Amino acid sequence: MSLAPWRSLVTSALHRNRSLVYSRYVQLATIRENGLPANRTVVFRGFLENSNQLKFITDIRSEKAEQIQQKSGAEVCWYFPNTREQFRISGELILVSANSHPHLQPARIKMWQELSDAARLQFVWPEPGQARVKDPQAFAPPAPDSTQPVETFCLLLLDPIQVDHLELRGEPQNRWVYHLQQNQEWSTQAINP
Amino acid sequence: MSLAPWRSLVTSALHRNRSLVYSRYVQLATIRENGLPANRTVVFRGFLENSNQLKFITDIRSEKAEQIQQKSGAEVCWYFPNTREQFRISGELILVSANSHPHLQPARIKMWQELSDAARLQFVWPEPGQARVKDPQAFAPPAPDSTQPVETFCLLLLDPIQVDHLELRGEPQNRWVYHLQQNQEWSTQAINP
Repeated sequence: MSLAPWRSLVTSALHRNRSLVYSRYVQLATIRENGLPANRTVVFRGFLENSNQLKFITDIRSEKAEQIQQKSGAEVCWYFPNTREQFRISGELILVSANSHPHLQPARIKMWQELSDAARLQFVWPEPGQARVKDPQAFAPPAPDSTQPVETFCLLLLDPIQVDHLELRGEPQNRWVYHLQQNQEWSTQAINP
Repeated sequence: MSLAPWRSLVTSALHRNRSLVYSRYVQLATIRENGLPANRTVVFRGFLENSNQLKFITDIRSEKAEQIQQKSGAEVCWYFPNTREQFRISGELILVSANSHPHLQPARIKMWQELSDAARLQFVWPEPGQARVKDPQAFAPPAPDSTQPVETFCLLLLDPIQVDHLELRGEPQNRWVYHLQQNQEWSTQAINP
């Protein structure tokens, strides 16, 4: 596996925007069962080792986990405020639940172990999206084991096929499209902004 | 028309995040012709008068204008960094081009007049998404008339049907869903984050 040509650009953007904790927040668009788009903020958790796949996490009980199992196509929109640049990364999502993708379980377990206690706790909260449970104690359960992920915890991978990079600070602006070709090489093209 | 119950929350979030120019940037998800999602950053331009519709602008030559004419369903994801809250606004897009929606032409013209010179100039740049025009002069055309919109300029409206509001700062977190019912009233429900 060779690093895609857009990887160093993402790394550089992350570095130059590191003063903003939310520069690791991206918007993930998926398709609902009824064919309409869904869009929500998720936290970028780094790249999977020896790959160009982006790591996220999700709860198996969430709407997006359901949507992904039906339609795996997705596009992430990532805007970096300090450098005024945008990456649109489209590709296929891979949902690594407790019972799928055996070869990715070590990555799922490692991701769980790297989370903060607060992040892990959310996976034992009441079912997301259901009528609000009024008892505040329901949101203060005992902390789950920090070494072994709970059943609800999923690693979510985005395997990119196309990346559209826009720099608003150019004169006038700069925009490139990177595309994964059948030979697994990435093409690069400058396009009009 | 009565203001939707989530309108004051958006207004308040805009006010409390006004120090960040990019708190008016949102991510707009639409569906491509091939059924896959598309997602990009757009600038919120206020609400249409006497309505709950969000205003954006786009170029008739852009991919999103094409997508919208095929499938008008969309979801905006709007994250406010200072207050750590997210609005997901889903609904139908209305593309107001030079040759459509006669009753919305006054709103289209007014939007054009309110733009900065730099914003207006982009609508007479070479065709977006095509192979980069190398001559920099192509991106420095004479400024278009500031009173009468050019043919490529579209007002884009999002007519909301559902709004999902998440406050990360709550204890634990707070989340509500607002839904437009058949009687044109909005329902409100507290749900689990």
